[in-house]
Amino acid sequence: MANEKKLVEAITSMDVDFAQWYTDVVKKAELMDYSSIRGCMIFKPAGYALWENIQHELDRRFKETGVENVYMPLFIPESLLEVEKDHVEGFAPEVAWVTHGGMNELQERLCVRPTSETLFCDFYKNDIESYRDLPRLYNQWCSVVRWEKETRPFLRSREFLWQEGHTAHATAEEAQERTIQMLNLYADFVEEFLSIPVIRGQKTDKEKFAGAEATYTIEALMHDGKALQSGTSHNFGDGFAKAFGIQYTDRDNQLKYVHQTSWGLTTRLIGALIMVHGDDSGLVLPPAVAPAQVMIIPVQQRKEGVMEASAALKDRLGSVCRVKLDDTDKSPGWKFSEQEMRGIPLRIELGPRDLAENHCVAVRRDTREKVTVSLDEIETVIPKLLDQIQREMFERAREHRDSHISDAHDYEEFCEAVSSRPGFIRGMWCGDQVCEDRIKEETGATSRCIPFHDGERISDVCVCCGKPAKKLIYWGKAY
Amino acid sequence: MANEKKLVEAITSMDVDFAQWYTDVVKKAELMDYSSIRGCMIFKPAGYALWENIQHELDRRFKETGVENVYMPLFIPESLLEVEKDHVEGFAPEVAWVTHGGMNELQERLCVRPTSETLFCDFYKNDIESYRDLPRLYNQWCSVVRWEKETRPFLRSREFLWQEGHTAHATAEEAQERTIQMLNLYADFVEEFLSIPVIRGQKTDKEKFAGAEATYTIEALMHDGKALQSGTSHNFGDGFAKAFGIQYTDRDNQLKYVHQTSWGLTTRLIGALIMVHGDDSGLVLPPAVAPAQVMIIPVQQRKEGVMEASAALKDRLGSVCRVKLDDTDKSPGWKFSEQEMRGIPLRIELGPRDLAENHCVAVRRDTREKVTVSLDEIETVIPKLLDQIQREMFERAREHRDSHISDAHDYEEFCEAVSSRPGFIRGMWCGDQVCEDRIKEETGATSRCIPFHDGERISDVCVCCGKPAKKLIYWGKAY
Repeated sequence: MANEKKLVEAITSMDVDFAQWYTDVVKKAELMDYSSIRGCMIFKPAGYALWENIQHELDRRFKETGVENVYMPLFIPESLLEVEKDHVEGFAPEVAWVTHGGMNELQERLCVRPTSETLFCDFYKNDIESYRDLPRLYNQWCSVVRWEKETRPFLRSREFLWQEGHTAHATAEEAQERTIQMLNLYADFVEEFLSIPVIRGQKTDKEKFAGAEATYTIEALMHDGKALQSGTSHNFGDGFAKAFGIQYTDRDNQLKYVHQTSWGLTTRLIGALIMVHGDDSGLVLPPAVAPAQVMIIPVQQRKEGVMEASAALKDRLGSVCRVKLDDTDKSPGWKFSEQEMRGIPLRIELGPRDLAENHCVAVRRDTREKVTVSLDEIETVIPKLLDQIQREMFERAREHRDSHISDAHDYEEFCEAVSSRPGFIRGMWCGDQVCEDRIKEETGATSRCIPFHDGERISDVCVCCGKPAKKLIYWGKAY
Repeated sequence: MANEKKLVEAITSMDVDFAQWYTDVVKKAELMDYSSIRGCMIFKPAGYALWENIQHELDRRFKETGVENVYMPLFIPESLLEVEKDHVEGFAPEVAWVTHGGMNELQERLCVRPTSETLFCDFYKNDIESYRDLPRLYNQWCSVVRWEKETRPFLRSREFLWQEGHTAHATAEEAQERTIQMLNLYADFVEEFLSIPVIRGQKTDKEKFAGAEATYTIEALMHDGKALQSGTSHNFGDGFAKAFGIQYTDRDNQLKYVHQTSWGLTTRLIGALIMVHGDDSGLVLPPAVAPAQVMIIPVQQRKEGVMEASAALKDRLGSVCRVKLDDTDKSPGWKFSEQEMRGIPLRIELGPRDLAENHCVAVRRDTREKVTVSLDEIETVIPKLLDQIQREMFERAREHRDSHISDAHDYEEFCEAVSSRPGFIRGMWCGDQVCEDRIKEETGATSRCIPFHDGERISDVCVCCGKPAKKLIYWGKAY
């Protein structure tokens, strides 16, 4: 193996320098490239294919709940962005402004959408007239722009791809129900499809979305113990409706304001996939999201019958999984390293001896475990193996996450945890933003969420100020 | 029927005012809405669903030819746009410029991509090193911005959705082959999936893409006799490669320039669907692209068993086509008009009498023909009927197109045809742009394409100047 390893340029070990390991993996696995615009990245085929699979599955789940896709303009007039006060304060400092169209200066500046609440509100204002028009359950797939100063591939870039759902409802209850429904949909999707366990909870007021009444989040833990906000769902109440004048005539013939939600999930999930599952040989992809689930690598491919058998095997497996055959003239060792770097869940080795014995050898990317599979049973065994990998990757990620949760009962314990035990820190909170601010300033940890599970209390006093506290918070350093 | 008609607000008759008819249909069929940014439109669910179906089918066809999807940034630095001289001259006058990011003025202006040749070239410059890296067959789905003065929904808007393919090849021959391959793919797709017949051909130098060596096009004819350019494929030769320095090391160890192509197809095809197939009752959709192919409308739905039977029918048909059930409490007449306005290819009426006789009535949207179908045979008859509609819609559109082609042998005939016979005009051309310019200026007709079919000659002299001419051109007024 030592020799073969050298065939693919080495990547930094994750224990030596996690940030450099990450950068090495995104480049060597050919997920992305840097563009000539600082902070804007190029999605290469292997990276974009991950997004396509995420999009396909998520879109299917959205539509099952009655969501329809639409497309709103890329631009927002400055005056429209300014209608809702909290919203503009949150976003104006980091938007890109268009000032000229062709040779002419525009009468009004347009910002490139950082998010589209204002556009949907402007649309709903005229589109919704009666209770019969409700609910409106719209979503769009697009890119948004936020002029960030510090950027990292997939995790934070000036342009990123996402979906943004925007719904309008007759009542506050329905809006709240949809907010939670979509958060749970995100959580299930991330856990089932990406094998990434998440904590579901609510953001504090300090961390909530600009203009929202309440923001809910799913928080995942990366291999280095940092948290990653992986999807958010917002309940706007009737705040935007009042600012924009979105009213409907109810059954009782009264004019009422609608209640709204929005929810979004982005390409930063690709960063999560890398940082939750990857290892020192590169990417490790859960089978469900992997563009290629199985790579067949012929051994001694010039020997009679090997290439023909490999091609025949590919045809057979093609009906039960996404399979590729590496029939290039590279050495098997080089091919193994490449398949590992790209994170393909399963490789199948097939050589003259295997053929003679009517089997092949399947090697798991996640555990490197080798399984000998009879060629007679290949169509049933391989899908089962892929399912098993998907489940076990989730279990391993959950064990890692759970073993990186510390409880802190006072500020000393909290500081000690932050400095010595990377991961989530559970600590009670009095509800005062002063404590939240102090923790962030002094330790670098932020409140990730107030978890949904009722009764999760580890003490009666705030971990920061010692005053009575009823709310448990998951704290952590975050991307 | 007269009474029922009134239930849905009338649309302008297409013979009275085709432009107004078009505007009425896009609004009443709820395909789009206007946004607060002049020239930028909103894709409503019914409109976006058409694009999703187009995208899904086209993407599948692309991938069958080895194309992979990527995503390039939204912005192009001004200096990058300027690298290829013809290209910048063609596009700079109509781009939107970003000058500020957050609170700061940018050091260099960024244009919002009007097309992404320059970004792909900038990427390929470093991405391609050896002949082993070729061909590169990349495509992206995105929106682009062109600051047009006159806009119309779907046909010409300041932002539109499209795909743009960008390939790089080792040889000029391969690039030319790919250019033609993609044009034929477009033509087959538009004819088979949208039931719209097209003329395949080459653009004159005057009409070709800014920076291209040759541009190929598919041209469709709308109901009013105007042409619509419906997809283009460009061969760039090594022009961009030389401007950007995109070289590879060939098998003979020599550094050589790559040869490139690009090809694009946009949401204006939705405009074509409307204007080729629509009628005075609204949209008429070919089944392949229709989001809902069949609408079940219960008759006397409060009578015992009708709703249950309708729901059961929907379940049965769900496995063979895209079917919806209108179980609202609107009257059947209202529902009929709505289904017609939205262009749903087939409606199925099911009432107590039908149930008693174990059949239903299927009504074609395109011909209004009624067919009585036994409920025992519904799963086989309906898909066949949908296929038949798809084929016959194409045939009707082809007959309309063919009956709107005139031949002109001299300038007098040409002018007479333009003013009295809407449609394509076939006329010979000497090859001199002076004639092309004169025709456009004096008649408003432009050269649509030089058709592929060899030997299509209707005379030996230019229809404009009378000098010797070998090239046949399809001329026409166009959107």
